[in-house]
Amino acid sequence: MTPRDEIDRRLEALRSALADDGLDAALIVQHTDLAYFSGTNQQAHLVVPVAGDPVLLVRRVLERARDESPLERIEPLRSLGGLPAALAAAGVESGATIGLELDVLPARLYLAYARRLADHELGDCSQAVRRVRARKSDWELARMRAAAEQVRQGAEAVPGLLRPGSLESHVQLEVERVLRLAGHQGQVRFRGFNQEMHYGQVLAGPSGAVPGYSDSPLCGPGPNPVLGKGPDGHVLEQGDLVIADLVGGHDGWLADQTRTFSLGPVDADLRAAHDCAASILRTVEAEIRPGTPASSLFDLAEGLALAAGLEEHFMGAGPQRVRFLGHGVGMEIDELPILAPGFEEPLEAGNVIAVEPKFVFPGRGAVGIENMYAVTADGFETMTTAPEELIEA
Amino acid sequence: MTPRDEIDRRLEALRSALADDGLDAALIVQHTDLAYFSGTNQQAHLVVPVAGDPVLLVRRVLERARDESPLERIEPLRSLGGLPAALAAAGVESGATIGLELDVLPARLYLAYARRLADHELGDCSQAVRRVRARKSDWELARMRAAAEQVRQGAEAVPGLLRPGSLESHVQLEVERVLRLAGHQGQVRFRGFNQEMHYGQVLAGPSGAVPGYSDSPLCGPGPNPVLGKGPDGHVLEQGDLVIADLVGGHDGWLADQTRTFSLGPVDADLRAAHDCAASILRTVEAEIRPGTPASSLFDLAEGLALAAGLEEHFMGAGPQRVRFLGHGVGMEIDELPILAPGFEEPLEAGNVIAVEPKFVFPGRGAVGIENMYAVTADGFETMTTAPEELIEA
Repeated sequence: MTPRDEIDRRLEALRSALADDGLDAALIVQHTDLAYFSGTNQQAHLVVPVAGDPVLLVRRVLERARDESPLERIEPLRSLGGLPAALAAAGVESGATIGLELDVLPARLYLAYARRLADHELGDCSQAVRRVRARKSDWELARMRAAAEQVRQGAEAVPGLLRPGSLESHVQLEVERVLRLAGHQGQVRFRGFNQEMHYGQVLAGPSGAVPGYSDSPLCGPGPNPVLGKGPDGHVLEQGDLVIADLVGGHDGWLADQTRTFSLGPVDADLRAAHDCAASILRTVEAEIRPGTPASSLFDLAEGLALAAGLEEHFMGAGPQRVRFLGHGVGMEIDELPILAPGFEEPLEAGNVIAVEPKFVFPGRGAVGIENMYAVTADGFETMTTAPEELIEA
Repeated sequence: MTPRDEIDRRLEALRSALADDGLDAALIVQHTDLAYFSGTNQQAHLVVPVAGDPVLLVRRVLERARDESPLERIEPLRSLGGLPAALAAAGVESGATIGLELDVLPARLYLAYARRLADHELGDCSQAVRRVRARKSDWELARMRAAAEQVRQGAEAVPGLLRPGSLESHVQLEVERVLRLAGHQGQVRFRGFNQEMHYGQVLAGPSGAVPGYSDSPLCGPGPNPVLGKGPDGHVLEQGDLVIADLVGGHDGWLADQTRTFSLGPVDADLRAAHDCAASILRTVEAEIRPGTPASSLFDLAEGLALAAGLEEHFMGAGPQRVRFLGHGVGMEIDELPILAPGFEEPLEAGNVIAVEPKFVFPGRGAVGIENMYAVTADGFETMTTAPEELIEA
């Protein structure tokens, strides 16, 4: 169970963020946000007034919500019709501006709330929620370290799984098995619309260089065009690059780590690109501390890729490159801050960022390293601890 | 690649459904709908005018969309700003009513479209989309049979995995491995907000009776309160019930099947409830044909549970019961038709329904059988072929 003081801290931060955004209350309904702010993922509305006590209004299952959440006010709400009265009882009066999670709330539900709450103004609390969730506590960091230990074990298992003739999808299956036996929860969550991934993505040979729908450097062909992401039926051959992007999951908290391997010796230019990824990480690390603008880490990395003559391969190949170096991680893979142009906000202590310099070579594959870092009061902690070297299996 | 005649059939059905709903066009953006109507899951808008040719407007990756989709008009669209002109070029004029997938489209995106398309009316095409997707073709049924073969193999593997002292989550892991080695795509999709599941859900002993957020008879405690669904750390004991709800996945097409097992002999009342589930399936099967109202299958099943004196255990226990017998299956687990009160629409040839009579006994577990059926011109085909018997391992 999430400790009471964790929930109190998160809610206090949310109240402050809502006030900054001109909102009088938040009405939280998305599963991850519900779990974060209440401790339970039962079917519920969480009302968080800027001035007043939070109330968890549970449709299903009330007893379980009461077992799992340390909140004091947990009450039944059977239908949306009861929502205006429940809001009034929580001190959210007519005319108040209520923030909804507009980045994830389906439009049809939004329109239903707009009808039900016609006496209120509706706003967007999703940026407030995401800013709060971007600052991790020691309790949260401990869980993310446990998730990182899973992906350390996963990466260490990869070399033993690489044999000519193996299917890349079977290598992925075996790596995911290692993660699960290390305690992985078996699912990972994205916040972004249409986003999904296997938690143990392994791309071998040319698959590493197949671009796709995701706004990230790697995608892969996927098992079919419906999923369109991840490995397909590539059979490992001597000389193949193998890039493993693993996402751990412990108590709902994630860890994101990428390591590169090869089946036998790799070409000198690929190894040089991998060395460049390591050197980008070292240079970026020197700037990870509170106050550094998130976008500046991208600028730094892009400059090093350019200086190495690798700009056509950096974060994708040619026209498929993405202007992006990394992202926040927490209970979802795609949290704040985003390390990309336009995101000028300074890093804060408690941010957890995945920094993932990768280089893509069409027809040949991809190399790169992704580490997850916690921003500390005066620097950083490297949370992903698998060896960074390109390992020739 | 999806054959051209499949895509043509689906789009023709969509045009007809849009016209029935008073819409002039659909603007499809959700990944599963995009894959269904275009054959590719690249980041794109699919414009489907009721009168006129469809256009796939691709943000990322254009070449891949052209490789994967048989559509003729596949064009780049870099930003939403170009959308009004692209719609006009597709023959969707100012003032036309454009249907969006309001059941899945995030509110913030909906509001962005409303601003960009201020000269159009916006409507909801999600019911039209879901009605079309509920009628499967022979080509689609062949893929669902392949997915059903995976879950047949998965269920057959369960008895060999049941030993006192094993973790229920490890049994699940091994069953999922069997599915993957049988070709499973490694992910399954829900359409509903906040819905997710492991594709090989195995609940043992009391876990089978733990209710939760999902509007279905079983949920389970989950590995943590953040996920809140699936197995947790229960250690198998002699006498445990084990219920395995497996979802196959092949070429994006799913198959849903539940079977019940036990570790040693089961109590007579649990076996009687399992017999009742079998007898519900036989009675329901006699009514599966075009024209039967979907809700009547629920009524029939509820009547049999009542006659057997099992009403307090049917589809959940006591206050946690759900009034629901099953659901459509296709590229998502939660498709139309829904077998529940209020869904009076008649079954049609081509519908695929999962019928899942289950009985829940608090503290002891759950028994039940779930079969997936295709509705044929004059009856049904049972697509899930694992033995239905409660197998004592």
